[in-house]
Amino acid sequence: MINKFNINVAIVGASGFTGLELIKIILQHPFFKISYLATSEGGGTASQLHSSLFGILDLPVKKINFDEIAKTSEIVFLALPHKTAMETVRELMKFPHIKIVDLSADYRLSHSRYIKSYGEHLDLENLNKAVYGLPELFREQIKQARLIANPGCYPTASILAVAPFLKFLKTGDSIIIDAKSGVSGAGKKCETNTHYVTINENMFAYNPLKHRHEPEIEEKLEIFGGEFHKVHFVPHLVPVTRGMLSSVYLRIDNNLELEDPIKYLREFYKNEKFIRIRENPPTMKDVAGTNFCDIFARRNGDLLYVESAIDNLMRGASSQAVLNANLIAGFDEFIGIPQIAIVP
Amino acid sequence: MINKFNINVAIVGASGFTGLELIKIILQHPFFKISYLATSEGGGTASQLHSSLFGILDLPVKKINFDEIAKTSEIVFLALPHKTAMETVRELMKFPHIKIVDLSADYRLSHSRYIKSYGEHLDLENLNKAVYGLPELFREQIKQARLIANPGCYPTASILAVAPFLKFLKTGDSIIIDAKSGVSGAGKKCETNTHYVTINENMFAYNPLKHRHEPEIEEKLEIFGGEFHKVHFVPHLVPVTRGMLSSVYLRIDNNLELEDPIKYLREFYKNEKFIRIRENPPTMKDVAGTNFCDIFARRNGDLLYVESAIDNLMRGASSQAVLNANLIAGFDEFIGIPQIAIVP
Amino acid sequence: MINKFNINVAIVGASGFTGLELIKIILQHPFFKISYLATSEGGGTASQLHSSLFGILDLPVKKINFDEIAKTSEIVFLALPHKTAMETVRELMKFPHIKIVDLSADYRLSHSRYIKSYGEHLDLENLNKAVYGLPELFREQIKQARLIANPGCYPTASILAVAPFLKFLKTGDSIIIDAKSGVSGAGKKCETNTHYVTINENMFAYNPLKHRHEPEIEEKLEIFGGEFHKVHFVPHLVPVTRGMLSSVYLRIDNNLELEDPIKYLREFYKNEKFIRIRENPPTMKDVAGTNFCDIFARRNGDLLYVESAIDNLMRGASSQAVLNANLIAGFDEFIGIPQIAIVP
Amino acid sequence: MINKFNINVAIVGASGFTGLELIKIILQHPFFKISYLATSEGGGTASQLHSSLFGILDLPVKKINFDEIAKTSEIVFLALPHKTAMETVRELMKFPHIKIVDLSADYRLSHSRYIKSYGEHLDLENLNKAVYGLPELFREQIKQARLIANPGCYPTASILAVAPFLKFLKTGDSIIIDAKSGVSGAGKKCETNTHYVTINENMFAYNPLKHRHEPEIEEKLEIFGGEFHKVHFVPHLVPVTRGMLSSVYLRIDNNLELEDPIKYLREFYKNEKFIRIRENPPTMKDVAGTNFCDIFARRNGDLLYVESAIDNLMRGASSQAVLNANLIAGFDEFIGIPQIAIVP
Repeated sequence: MINKFNINVAIVGASGFTGLELIKIILQHPFFKISYLATSEGGGTASQLHSSLFGILDLPVKKINFDEIAKTSEIVFLALPHKTAMETVRELMKFPHIKIVDLSADYRLSHSRYIKSYGEHLDLENLNKAVYGLPELFREQIKQARLIANPGCYPTASILAVAPFLKFLKTGDSIIIDAKSGVSGAGKKCETNTHYVTINENMFAYNPLKHRHEPEIEEKLEIFGGEFHKVHFVPHLVPVTRGMLSSVYLRIDNNLELEDPIKYLREFYKNEKFIRIRENPPTMKDVAGTNFCDIFARRNGDLLYVESAIDNLMRGASSQAVLNANLIAGFDEFIGIPQIAIVP
Repeated sequence: MINKFNINVAIVGASGFTGLELIKIILQHPFFKISYLATSEGGGTASQLHSSLFGILDLPVKKINFDEIAKTSEIVFLALPHKTAMETVRELMKFPHIKIVDLSADYRLSHSRYIKSYGEHLDLENLNKAVYGLPELFREQIKQARLIANPGCYPTASILAVAPFLKFLKTGDSIIIDAKSGVSGAGKKCETNTHYVTINENMFAYNPLKHRHEPEIEEKLEIFGGEFHKVHFVPHLVPVTRGMLSSVYLRIDNNLELEDPIKYLREFYKNEKFIRIRENPPTMKDVAGTNFCDIFARRNGDLLYVESAIDNLMRGASSQAVLNANLIAGFDEFIGIPQIAIVP
Repeated sequence: MINKFNINVAIVGASGFTGLELIKIILQHPFFKISYLATSEGGGTASQLHSSLFGILDLPVKKINFDEIAKTSEIVFLALPHKTAMETVRELMKFPHIKIVDLSADYRLSHSRYIKSYGEHLDLENLNKAVYGLPELFREQIKQARLIANPGCYPTASILAVAPFLKFLKTGDSIIIDAKSGVSGAGKKCETNTHYVTINENMFAYNPLKHRHEPEIEEKLEIFGGEFHKVHFVPHLVPVTRGMLSSVYLRIDNNLELEDPIKYLREFYKNEKFIRIRENPPTMKDVAGTNFCDIFARRNGDLLYVESAIDNLMRGASSQAVLNANLIAGFDEFIGIPQIAIVP
Repeated sequence: MINKFNINVAIVGASGFTGLELIKIILQHPFFKISYLATSEGGGTASQLHSSLFGILDLPVKKINFDEIAKTSEIVFLALPHKTAMETVRELMKFPHIKIVDLSADYRLSHSRYIKSYGEHLDLENLNKAVYGLPELFREQIKQARLIANPGCYPTASILAVAPFLKFLKTGDSIIIDAKSGVSGAGKKCETNTHYVTINENMFAYNPLKHRHEPEIEEKLEIFGGEFHKVHFVPHLVPVTRGMLSSVYLRIDNNLELEDPIKYLREFYKNEKFIRIRENPPTMKDVAGTNFCDIFARRNGDLLYVESAIDNLMRGASSQAVLNANLIAGFDEFIGIPQIAIVP
């Protein structure tokens, strides 16, 4: 039985940016306790991996070992590359007391879509059990789940902007999303597209109309709204470390009434603590370091423009993961979830 | 008679960013010579206005005086706020030997559109004579003009991206443009939205669906293509000093053939020295400091995505202005126009 | 009598960057509660002043009123310009139950030094009672104080780097400090030196050898070490929002033993939770968002180089202020003080 | 015999940042013509190496071949790593018509200092012939040289700041230099210290008191001034792409007269076109993209503070290299050398 007020959690994949964010959030979480840290190689301590943790956390970093995880932890966060995540989930799910929040792409998509975007899937059994961890849309399923597929950053920002308006779309009409992400989304790997000189004073689109988050957005919107809409998705890299905007362009069926989209959004999300409806276009900074998704909408004729802002590492990854862990642990979902932005 | 190879030019409004860019370009231009610099207040020298010009240009900065301009100059660049520009043009046009490139919004729009966006117009006579200075679309008229309305930065980037594809649009269909601009576009004025702390590590939309460049884009596309399309325009501020992307989303009439939009763009712009068709989405840096407009396009079903990149201060203002001056002076248009980007 | 576990605090001067940081820290502090927010003008709510607080704090913002402050609050944080601070302190000190942490320069200096740097002082009575709020050097006095002069950002970083080595200096030798500050240190006021275009891709010194923090450093080091050393201080503005480095160059008396300055620092600060001795030069990011001061030292011959890093808004202002409030309230000093950096 | 007005030059090491800067400068140089481009691997064209050159330069990029270089070129710029540079110089110097500007460290130091900092030297013969390419100090020797050792960026900024004041130093006193460099100085290699997320919103010292430019500064100052002074050198990495400040702290012999250091600097450098003496601390931006070195000085008692600013890629590498090539080719040194900064 889970001790509700002192749950041991493992962070597997502790060396990356989302791993660091998980550590930071859980260090300040009143009920979760980091019992196990691992990377693919293992070695050293938390503060050797992340120098900002010097004097804060000196836990040893282990090489991933399933039995050790099972012995030490009740909830496991996986911040691993896809494929590696799948192999780890498959083994960990064999321990019945373990619950998992997987931050990779491995359990986000239906089998057929997964194959198209990422290739073969090796753990169909658990794929069918996984719940997509976007609480505003799938809260009740999350609470019952043992395996959470934590959403991608672009899908989180985009789905939260589009979902409220699905019922106003013309049947079969496509959805245009122009997204902007900070560089931390590209990960800690050093390569041309993360080199300071490439990014600084620059901005550009990448993988336009071909990004792997496109089918994720399409699938979840279809599940939620009951109808398929093609998504045309163009992401851009922006010279900031963290932050994400999703600019959505929808064509509204003029026969349906939608006079004041902001008022409508307020109503739609009225019970959602981590959605803030803004009277002006949201900014990256107002949500940086928090789990908030700020949303704005404006209509002109049949065109509806919706803009959402999240922190790609927080709501787009780690704070949403901890919130999902709160839900599966039976806590109030906002316990220990950052709300105070790092402005200025 | 104009001495073709040593033309005296005035820069009126020399204190702002576009004024500085004009100075820098003309200093390196083989045939233009700065004969007169002015600001609304006057006083000091060029290098006191712009400390980077120390040791380079110590010309005195005058308070605007129409007779002095007429005496000293054949071509006048106006980098003034709208309204002020109009009052200056009206007086300068009385001197028949003077030709003007106006960088303000005052002569860009038809009268009716001007009134809606900017209020009353005080110089209808010259408004009717002005030619819109986008050379790829209106080169022959520019050559004959005495007064050039130099295009806005957003319209330049957007029109060059959209114009080639106008004939593929469904009749009456609207055009979606998601644009991104560096902060220099907001001018030298110190205010919250130009404060370093507001912009740095941040990004946000402003005036979505309501920006004054929207009607400018609509009007010029209608003139060029012969049909009106509503433009839905959302600009964003990006934490870079200079640079602009225009991301365009069009719905293509599937009955028309457009198999390879990049190949088509190459053909469309084959004689244009300052358009570069890219095989990958263009970047702000590759055009920074130059007059280039780099364009990329990709199609998926009936959705056509086009992305263009310019330097907002150069192709979006000052280098395009000097190029227009080349045309009205009878020079090859590329004389003295920057082509080498400031990468890295 | 102070209720130790639920103390009402006022933040006067809530509109600036340090005001916002105070709000954010106290919102997360277990024992302090914001009972009163004020600005010089008053009006609106906390979230109207700071849009990131939307949904977090909607407390009304009052126009400064001494009686209201006295009625609502036990501890008052003043984040006001100097002079204004002094006038406010003078009035508030008349209420015997009130304790004050003043973030301005008004109570940091001896009378004679104050006059030279800032002009006339209007509250000599309290000037003599104020304690300089640098806990590592003056902890016991702080605990007894009613009025804390919270140190400047440059002095905090510099004094913590120099103080341990004072006894190794040659008698009368001067101290060289080359400091670097993020732009938030220049405040929220919009002016040329805070314009994005001025700062971005730029760096420069300002007020070299003439900055008003120079005498503050000299005075406090003299008080602590018992001997006067001239400080030569050159601050630079760096294109980051928050962060500060202080690079100190000292000449060591070769007759004194100092083999391993890092080891020595560790010993000197062994009981200090918010000092971290680094084996490599500290970085701005490792301390951003925290109260830490990270220090490194290296010696070559008689030259000792010491580098310290702080967050100018936190250890250099607001988190140090709250720590001082902890001390005067009798709490453990680290209660509610941020320790987790905002990396990445 | 050299045709003075159309000299073929080779750029060997064309893929890095300094290689690109060389290409850009020479493309705009009236008398130099790029006849040969090479990298260690070869392959592709200039615009495939550097996408900003698309449409500008499509010269093929060769694998380094000494005979080809000798056949095609009269002046060779080497932008290669040290050691590789040395091996290339040794071969190229066998062709008597070839003159070389080497941007590496290989010929900058005396043999004994080279060994200490970089290890064995394999080309002592040419090491003895090489001239250090700092024109303000060694112009006449440069004009006669076949092999120029182009100075490092830090030494250029530092020596130009210190040299004028050498005669005021106390005998044997050491020199303190706190330097700041943009990230392009770290080269195009992708690694942790060039990752955007490491650099952005950050600043830190590296190799303090141990950087390999320290002996270069010491040696050249000794040669110029006739006396050895120990240099204590601490470089910092700054979140800008290009730019460099050198903050110098000197102790002046109070017996010598130096009332107005700015006036003195003006006199010292009165014939130097690429030195600008500033009345305020120089900024990175005012010299970005140019060959200028801007210098400021201020004295307080026996402390003299001097601050210089250069563009690390230009005056610190490529534009100084082309200027040296001008000198060895017998041209006026300022022909084709960038003077107009890339502000804003």
